Amino acid sequence: MDAAPPLSPTARSTVRRGARRARTDRAELHAVLDAGLVGHLGLVVNGSPIVLPTGYGRRGDILYLHGSTGAASLRAAAAGVPVCFTVTLLDGVVYARSAFHHSMNYRCAVVHGVVRPVTDPDERLLGLEVLTEHLAPGSWAATRQPDRRELAATALLALDLTEASVKVRTGPPGDDDRDVPGPDEPDPVWAGVLPVRTVVGEPEPCPLLPRGTPVPTRVRDRVS
Amino acid sequence: MDAAPPLSPTARSTVRRGARRARTDRAELHAVLDAGLVGHLGLVVNGSPIVLPTGYGRRGDILYLHGSTGAASLRAAAAGVPVCFTVTLLDGVVYARSAFHHSMNYRCAVVHGVVRPVTDPDERLLGLEVLTEHLAPGSWAATRQPDRRELAATALLALDLTEASVKVRTGPPGDDDRDVPGPDEPDPVWAGVLPVRTVVGEPEPCPLLPRGTPVPTRVRDRVS
Repeated sequence: MDAAPPLSPTARSTVRRGARRARTDRAELHAVLDAGLVGHLGLVVNGSPIVLPTGYGRRGDILYLHGSTGAASLRAAAAGVPVCFTVTLLDGVVYARSAFHHSMNYRCAVVHGVVRPVTDPDERLLGLEVLTEHLAPGSWAATRQPDRRELAATALLALDLTEASVKVRTGPPGDDDRDVPGPDEPDPVWAGVLPVRTVVGEPEPCPLLPRGTPVPTRVRDRVS
Repeated sequence: MDAAPPLSPTARSTVRRGARRARTDRAELHAVLDAGLVGHLGLVVNGSPIVLPTGYGRRGDILYLHGSTGAASLRAAAAGVPVCFTVTLLDGVVYARSAFHHSMNYRCAVVHGVVRPVTDPDERLLGLEVLTEHLAPGSWAATRQPDRRELAATALLALDLTEASVKVRTGPPGDDDRDVPGPDEPDPVWAGVLPVRTVVGEPEPCPLLPRGTPVPTRVRDRVS
């Protein structure tokens, strides 16, 4: 069990539509973030929204994001503007007896906040370790760590998880009673869920790797 | 081959970072959009960005989005504000010989524009058919179509694909030469790609469906 306080939504982090799908447990927020690999960062540039995919990593209630210092979006985010960071996991296609009730099963975390550029050298290394380990567990210790030039080229941002919401849909379709036939009715419309999963396939070694180089456990263990 | 004109990016739809990953072929834009099921819609509400997952469907160079008329985000989008709609497909985790060069293989489409609320009754039905068929091919004809009340509760938006960009990363890690050991060097750091795929599992029938109801081909054929 997670001992952290529950999510305390503000007006904009309160789930209005489909409130029965809202979750208020901080552990559920962490679980969705930990299960995803790609998030979508939204920010406002010249009055228009931009939404870009980005990797991330979580440590406690801090989310770390990174990217090139040359990226205009990250420069804008580093300037202290409000951002929205969303991670969505698709779990299934929901087939209903009406077009209207077709849906998706999913888990979605939405975080609002102002990102903090991470400048402290120790926290920068920590944040990059968190990011690397989220993407590729074990890689931080197994590979060459960033040198001074690489660090200078990397923008690292921290986003606090204070203002966040989680929405989850699970289960069968929510059909209208009128669309559900009795048990003796012939040829009903098929209804149910087609589960969708993200799976990891066989490792594809880099062509520059000597033939026969073993795949380490940290990689092998991720294969579905 | 796609005979449509190539993507003609504006300043904000020009890929600046990683320009070698930018694609300029309209067919590639269509392919990414057609392969995804969930997009992320970004818009500005009270000066702050919000990014929400949403289903969509494509017909030619029009993208249809829909949602409840009660959703604040869709009401804002329908009011003619600029939006950004992004679809990202994760294809792999890229393991490099340095933490810095770890990456992801992906395909990403980013569309900028102002959405148009669809009010014409015929186009509304068409748009909902496109959306339903993208999510669940064959479902529009096989299930009950929306009645007047359901149509009134559904906001349908159209987004033109004029201003869009596509970015794709494929292939092995882009390691520095200094990190790639010679062929006779022992114990190299494993490098390569762990492919990530989205798969569809066995259909889960609705509990209200009579036992033994066959799974139709339109559903069965999607199982991976």
